Amino acid sequence: MTTPQDPTLALFNIVGSVSPVLVTYTQDKIVDELWSRLGLSRRDRAIVTVSTLVARNAQLAYPHYLEKALDSGLEPSELSELMTHLAFYAGWPNAFGAMATLSAIFAKRGVTTDQLPGVSEDLIPLEEAIPDEAIRASFIAETVTPVSPSLQHFTDDLLYHEVWRRPGLAPRDRGLATLSVLAASGQSDFLPFYFSRARQQGLTVEQFGEALSHIAFYGGWGAAIRAAGVLKTSLQGEG
Amino acid sequence: MTTPQDPTLALFNIVGSVSPVLVTYTQDKIVDELWSRLGLSRRDRAIVTVSTLVARNAQLAYPHYLEKALDSGLEPSELSELMTHLAFYAGWPNAFGAMATLSAIFAKRGVTTDQLPGVSEDLIPLEEAIPDEAIRASFIAETVTPVSPSLQHFTDDLLYHEVWRRPGLAPRDRGLATLSVLAASGQSDFLPFYFSRARQQGLTVEQFGEALSHIAFYGGWGAAIRAAGVLKTSLQGEG
Amino acid sequence: MTTPQDPTLALFNIVGSVSPVLVTYTQDKIVDELWSRLGLSRRDRAIVTVSTLVARNAQLAYPHYLEKALDSGLEPSELSELMTHLAFYAGWPNAFGAMATLSAIFAKRGVTTDQLPGVSEDLIPLEEAIPDEAIRASFIAETVTPVSPSLQHFTDDLLYHEVWRRPGLAPRDRGLATLSVLAASGQSDFLPFYFSRARQQGLTVEQFGEALSHIAFYGGWGAAIRAAGVLKTSLQGEG
Repeated sequence: MTTPQDPTLALFNIVGSVSPVLVTYTQDKIVDELWSRLGLSRRDRAIVTVSTLVARNAQLAYPHYLEKALDSGLEPSELSELMTHLAFYAGWPNAFGAMATLSAIFAKRGVTTDQLPGVSEDLIPLEEAIPDEAIRASFIAETVTPVSPSLQHFTDDLLYHEVWRRPGLAPRDRGLATLSVLAASGQSDFLPFYFSRARQQGLTVEQFGEALSHIAFYGGWGAAIRAAGVLKTSLQGEG
Repeated sequence: MTTPQDPTLALFNIVGSVSPVLVTYTQDKIVDELWSRLGLSRRDRAIVTVSTLVARNAQLAYPHYLEKALDSGLEPSELSELMTHLAFYAGWPNAFGAMATLSAIFAKRGVTTDQLPGVSEDLIPLEEAIPDEAIRASFIAETVTPVSPSLQHFTDDLLYHEVWRRPGLAPRDRGLATLSVLAASGQSDFLPFYFSRARQQGLTVEQFGEALSHIAFYGGWGAAIRAAGVLKTSLQGEG
Repeated sequence: MTTPQDPTLALFNIVGSVSPVLVTYTQDKIVDELWSRLGLSRRDRAIVTVSTLVARNAQLAYPHYLEKALDSGLEPSELSELMTHLAFYAGWPNAFGAMATLSAIFAKRGVTTDQLPGVSEDLIPLEEAIPDEAIRASFIAETVTPVSPSLQHFTDDLLYHEVWRRPGLAPRDRGLATLSVLAASGQSDFLPFYFSRARQQGLTVEQFGEALSHIAFYGGWGAAIRAAGVLKTSLQGEG
């Protein structure tokens, strides 16, 4: 962050010319404090942050945070597969926008397609990828099929029986990414459903509690508070 | 899609350098399968897709999909009027963003303003444009007027008694576009209201069921599933 | 608006080449009518409009509307502090995007950092900034703390006990900005809470009623109608 060409430093200079305190908050509260808190690994924080940014179409933030994701322990192959997953939950155009930046970063770092997940992969067992498959499939059959057999087809056959079963990204990580997109998009209704699955796959309340602060800073406070409220009500119902 | 200058091919190459499987999904599932399914015409699919993209501010996707809309049977005059309609439902800035791209496409294709809907047009009869006008007006009077006479004025006098009555785009197509924007924006609360009107004007459950898969791919899965759920509950209430 | 280099005129020409009527609506309904209506000052309209644009990541609209905000009576120091506030409610990346444009406008107008709010400021009294602090803090403690002590920490210690108490922007203006972001993002659930606070600080129903039309034109009709409905129900509950 010390050469004049550094884009992050350049952005800090621009922000500082409008709001000096926002540079301080960014450095002290986000870079130094948030990303260093215990309770969630830097790698997981990268998954949450990238997912939030793609959900919000945050083009300006991609150069810095996609590099940071790779520097935080996310493998290129995992970041590739995360983009595939995000295309479904944040929409194709949002994912394509991030991939334009990521393509240049991969080229710069010498990442070639033979290091990335392929078109055909041996799928992991259904019960491992989607332990709640019976509940999931019957929810879709009851709620979606009556109005859209088409959406049921793509949801069951492509998104769940193929994408979620691809081995390039752990199901627990897919859950963390999906929760982040839904929360950051203000689509909190289905959070309890995805959170219940992610917990079966190893995500803890403590970890997602940390994730919510990333969603607040990068996706806006209202969405994060609403997500916390929905999850709190859902957890309360358990016990 | 075979010359090196082709922007779609260039984008495919970029996406393929990050996620080879996403190129396959785009070609096999979206281009070849989704757009060719029975149950909704390619022209209607273009209305749904463009509306979803504008709702999501998907700048990157405009060059390809606005061309595709014209190649799918949507007249330049209809696409012009669709932009006017979308300005209201997706917000002025989102529509202006798409129109910057569309302006260049019109210029390239030799579309001039005399082929487009004019400033003043003979409006179609109110009962044809808004068959549920009595319900609509009383909803606004009860819900909006007490807190915002200003919003009631622009809604009644401009949006409904003028824009919806302009002849450049059929009321049924305005309904399909509005439903797409609301669903893709996660604003599903009013879907039953607009869907009920659109059905009176010829849109079928089967057709909108097909539309929901476009909303899923281009606008994200969560929004499409939520929209399906809201419509399913609403249709169930009927019978 | 008469030189060929004028970017607003250039944009009008582009829009007019796609939809002539949208140029007419923009001039007659937005520029001439909406911005000149009684019931809300042009300065407050600028706060609502900028907040809506940042909530929606409306890059294309920043050059025109950030200039207009300064020309409508918003001080550079207030606009600076508004950006800081919006970073929290619309997310860091959306605010950074607007600040890139605002930085150039400040440079052109000769606004230097000594005219802007500093990093450390004498905070205004808590009861003045957040008259409903007891209710607010207990809501966060009950709803957020059980799932995210992290989000509670940043919400209480940074956002409320520091940002809302910074003197660069009046609490009532922070309220107006926050309401605009939440309404324009479709996050209407918390509107009654923020509206109740803003009313204690001087915002009237009439003023926010005017604001809702800006949210409709710049952020889309669905979000504005939904916000009106939520507020109407909430005001009705008061008796």
